[in-house]
Amino acid sequence: MSHLYFGGVDVVELAEEYGTPLYITDENRLISNFRSYKAAFEGYYDTDIYYAVKANGNLAILKLLAREGAGADVFSTGELQLTKLAGIKTDKILFNGNSRSDEDLIMAVESGVKVSVDSSDELNALATVAEQLGKDVEIAIRVNPDVSPDVNPKIATGLKESKFGVPYTGIVELCKSASNKRNISLVGLHCHIGSQILDVSVFSEAADKMLELVTSLYEIGIELEFVDLGGGLGIAYRPDEIAPTPADLRDAILPAFERAEIAPPKLILEPGRSIVGPASILVSRVNAVKRAYKNFVAIDAGFNLLIRPAMYDAYHEVVVANRYNEPCSEVYTVVGPICESGDIIARDRRLPAVRRGDLIAIFDTGAYGFSMSSQYNGRPRCAEVLVKDGHIDLIRERESFDDIIRNQRIPPRLVQQA
Amino acid sequence: MSHLYFGGVDVVELAEEYGTPLYITDENRLISNFRSYKAAFEGYYDTDIYYAVKANGNLAILKLLAREGAGADVFSTGELQLTKLAGIKTDKILFNGNSRSDEDLIMAVESGVKVSVDSSDELNALATVAEQLGKDVEIAIRVNPDVSPDVNPKIATGLKESKFGVPYTGIVELCKSASNKRNISLVGLHCHIGSQILDVSVFSEAADKMLELVTSLYEIGIELEFVDLGGGLGIAYRPDEIAPTPADLRDAILPAFERAEIAPPKLILEPGRSIVGPASILVSRVNAVKRAYKNFVAIDAGFNLLIRPAMYDAYHEVVVANRYNEPCSEVYTVVGPICESGDIIARDRRLPAVRRGDLIAIFDTGAYGFSMSSQYNGRPRCAEVLVKDGHIDLIRERESFDDIIRNQRIPPRLVQQA
Repeated sequence: MSHLYFGGVDVVELAEEYGTPLYITDENRLISNFRSYKAAFEGYYDTDIYYAVKANGNLAILKLLAREGAGADVFSTGELQLTKLAGIKTDKILFNGNSRSDEDLIMAVESGVKVSVDSSDELNALATVAEQLGKDVEIAIRVNPDVSPDVNPKIATGLKESKFGVPYTGIVELCKSASNKRNISLVGLHCHIGSQILDVSVFSEAADKMLELVTSLYEIGIELEFVDLGGGLGIAYRPDEIAPTPADLRDAILPAFERAEIAPPKLILEPGRSIVGPASILVSRVNAVKRAYKNFVAIDAGFNLLIRPAMYDAYHEVVVANRYNEPCSEVYTVVGPICESGDIIARDRRLPAVRRGDLIAIFDTGAYGFSMSSQYNGRPRCAEVLVKDGHIDLIRERESFDDIIRNQRIPPRLVQQA
Repeated sequence: MSHLYFGGVDVVELAEEYGTPLYITDENRLISNFRSYKAAFEGYYDTDIYYAVKANGNLAILKLLAREGAGADVFSTGELQLTKLAGIKTDKILFNGNSRSDEDLIMAVESGVKVSVDSSDELNALATVAEQLGKDVEIAIRVNPDVSPDVNPKIATGLKESKFGVPYTGIVELCKSASNKRNISLVGLHCHIGSQILDVSVFSEAADKMLELVTSLYEIGIELEFVDLGGGLGIAYRPDEIAPTPADLRDAILPAFERAEIAPPKLILEPGRSIVGPASILVSRVNAVKRAYKNFVAIDAGFNLLIRPAMYDAYHEVVVANRYNEPCSEVYTVVGPICESGDIIARDRRLPAVRRGDLIAIFDTGAYGFSMSSQYNGRPRCAEVLVKDGHIDLIRERESFDDIIRNQRIPPRLVQQA
């Protein structure tokens, strides 16, 4: 009876000590994923890696990446505050967004980060805020590059119809307008074509389009400091998938920079999933095994903690952590404890015969796992631990019922009458 | 320039005072929706209404329903605790579930609620727990009725392949087994066929199947106290939809009871959406209006606060709350502030010309709105108010950044080295 080990730690012992469900992040994998980006570009091109905080905003993870020299792609004032707390320097933070209030823009300008501007409406609002504060702000314009990666439409962000960015054809005009605004300093162009992309050729297309824009701007006297090509590199969720590496991404992107007729600006990339995704597993306890029209394994983690299978029909590999490497003799559908038919974690998987009390480990859950979690069905959210070479640190305490009711207020008139 | 009023309150003033995004629940609508269930069955058949807490577990809402005599359908110990806090009597609580730990079952037995058992595995676990505690527990068996309502498959819970319940053909055998267990008292049968059902004929089918089972059990000496047909009555999200009423549901269900050859047991229903859904709106501020390949209105609420459009392709009616009843001259797609292409609240809607600062009210958001909310993208969750005849009560405080980091722990070794 062999146990699954992760980060040098026996997953069964971790589940005993910290309870289930439990997110477990392996520090070495995280760091190595980040370093593979640095290594792929170092010596080839002046490149900064801005980690996409939305994928996983755990402070300990952000601190580890900060130490490695990561910048940050943030999409809200909350994410901005997280990265600052984690020690990421404000000159390496790009505040993206498509819907920001004046308060959001004020925090952006006051904190001194770069702002990616999504529309002319937002450019005007930002200019007004900056002028009122009497401070300058460096901006990029978010470009809608109109490229179509072959991914779930919910995460294809660079389609023509996408809500993000300014249409390609309107960029030069908006950049001119930005250049003429007081307190606004246009320093970059930004795009993001999608998520979980396994064919890097779309990155070549995006790079070409962005460098065409850079050249057009140069010709009218607007010189940029950077081009941000966003994130989107996919990972191998399925055993038969092969994920492109950061080096593959480099080889797809850099030819466009080399072909450029002008000295091209520096490159920024915003990887999220490819750094944190494979670095975590979610461990969950089996509460029931049921032979019905299908064979079901019901575990204590559902789409409250991992919404990707229910929301994007995503695939995650699952194993029985306490009988790892046993022959897979049965076919099960692994479901969560949520009161919805769609609460299915894994369909029709070959596993060893499962019993109540077994532990199911769900792989590659570091990205868009805890970050999208909810308290749906009155369920407190789970704990997270960081493991490294057999060492364990708790990085998020398990919620309790108090966390469900903390902000709720019962009007006095209802208390009296009850 | 006319304003939208809700519960006798000017929505624009509410947004000014409490900020946005803001969930607003109209007490009168809530109560009237609940009473329409009571009125539909009172005098016709002995029926209890167990509100489905998962739809909206706000304590104030639960207290109001408790006062009206509602029981509760709960699906976790968290929901169980919420209902008890709200004053719902334990003899009117049914603890449903498909994945319960020993701790869950212990709380179920100790609190004295009825338990709907989902599998033979769970029956055995519950019997063991009850015996160890030396307490009796009343149970129902969850039946998979194998009926197919015409709804989104993610919320069709009574299909043959659904994770819920015991196959129809195995019910009698499992009931026999339950009847022979010490500390277990079999008192009911339970099913739930789906959600947002607009054609009540499937309820007739389910009622027929359940009463067949009741009769079969009666013939072998097992008499039941209740049949629980679950919830699922749809509401009219779209202007051209007509929702069935509780009276329509009664007319679909009761003939099966009247045809029964034995004295049928009492009826339990578990409505959620049809009680709370139309009783709330979500009000959100416009941060940007963008003319791109489509015309976008970007608001400050996204699928972090209302996931139904992104997850189920659900439709919600939207209006401009501060210029209500103005002619709708433009077509907009209303999107949220979340960094995903799928963060679309409403597609291609006719609205008055929208400007930054306007307020968008999203209708019928009382069910599966706040209850499925998350802190995705580092966004604190919003506040909720209860309104009644012009009176306002805050029933949930707005979260702050502290609520994002409250449970996070940075290992000392990372603090030191940072």
